[in-house]
Amino acid sequence: MQRPSNPPSAPTQKTQVKRGAKKAHYDQATLYAILDEAFVCHVAAQQADHTGLQPTLHWREGDRLYIHGSSKNGLFRALIEGAEACIGVTLLDGIVFARSAFHHSVNYRSVIIYGYAKPIIEPQEKRRLLDLMLEKFSTGRSQEARPPNENELKATDVLAFELTEMSGKLRTGGPVDDAADMALPIWAGVKPLTRQWGEIDYDHAPIDHTSPSQ
Amino acid sequence: MQRPSNPPSAPTQKTQVKRGAKKAHYDQATLYAILDEAFVCHVAAQQADHTGLQPTLHWREGDRLYIHGSSKNGLFRALIEGAEACIGVTLLDGIVFARSAFHHSVNYRSVIIYGYAKPIIEPQEKRRLLDLMLEKFSTGRSQEARPPNENELKATDVLAFELTEMSGKLRTGGPVDDAADMALPIWAGVKPLTRQWGEIDYDHAPIDHTSPSQ
Repeated sequence: MQRPSNPPSAPTQKTQVKRGAKKAHYDQATLYAILDEAFVCHVAAQQADHTGLQPTLHWREGDRLYIHGSSKNGLFRALIEGAEACIGVTLLDGIVFARSAFHHSVNYRSVIIYGYAKPIIEPQEKRRLLDLMLEKFSTGRSQEARPPNENELKATDVLAFELTEMSGKLRTGGPVDDAADMALPIWAGVKPLTRQWGEIDYDHAPIDHTSPSQ
Repeated sequence: MQRPSNPPSAPTQKTQVKRGAKKAHYDQATLYAILDEAFVCHVAAQQADHTGLQPTLHWREGDRLYIHGSSKNGLFRALIEGAEACIGVTLLDGIVFARSAFHHSVNYRSVIIYGYAKPIIEPQEKRRLLDLMLEKFSTGRSQEARPPNENELKATDVLAFELTEMSGKLRTGGPVDDAADMALPIWAGVKPLTRQWGEIDYDHAPIDHTSPSQ
């Protein structure tokens, strides 16, 4: 991923975190690291008669976030037609057990982005960006896989969002109890949650399995 | 969690999965298992002048999903005032490496729910439901923690959503390549992703740390 060149984004009326403001972080490097670690985002937008929401894959290059999908998809269609997107990315890092029920919480890192989709039309640029998604999957993968043909490129819409209006919210560390509760004989602590990538389960399908003519 | 009594929900116009319909699952037990395994959902709704989206914790009892927060939160306020919510829950299970760039994918399980919030007003019921959230954190926790007092209960809004309009989308298994690509000398397979809960990091803050008068 190339190095971001913009200054950290200042909060706007929408991205100014109002509740739990002490958990608000606007530092660009922090927010970009969350976007890069996570694979799945949730994209919300107003569709014809309702608010729609979908999970999808995302990736980042510089100060742009990308998603891909089909323009036959209703939410993608709304985005292409100009609906403002609200995109959320959240990583859960643990459960925080406090002495009081009220102060139970979770450790997490989240980013909320507002923006308008810019569809990527030019085939070579679209292919370059889809290659970047494969590189996020695994470094070097875009050089290994059979590249997309013209029809496959046409069937895939890539949408770009400028990362200019975004905010983050993070919680880290242990429980924060009221002083009056600290002497209570109640355990407290953090149960961490981590994501573990396993060994690749290779697909050894015989060549003639899907090629009966051979 | 009590056993759901309703029949599986039939798809409505909104929840009918149109793209990738072969990945669509409407079986109630499957969808409920996804909701119960996941801790974080993303809630979208139309606010005054924009579509808002927030991550929050959720839990389920029977055919209802619950979230909690503060009514001073803009999105919660919109929900309480009658905006329809669209709630998404997604668990990523792995990356699917296909022989072609185009057929790369991810294994995942997701649920999308549409519904209107019903605020829980009655304090005893609110407390019972917040206890259920603690039980999701850890069985028995609601009996261990110091219970919420009147002010803490007042500061917490609990919103209920009937699980009547929902859909799921899942992908499992290995890569699905075009027949013509199967003979290519390109590796394919699935890199699994799992969530691991670690050992609890107990908080051993000395009692006098926050109680200097002792």
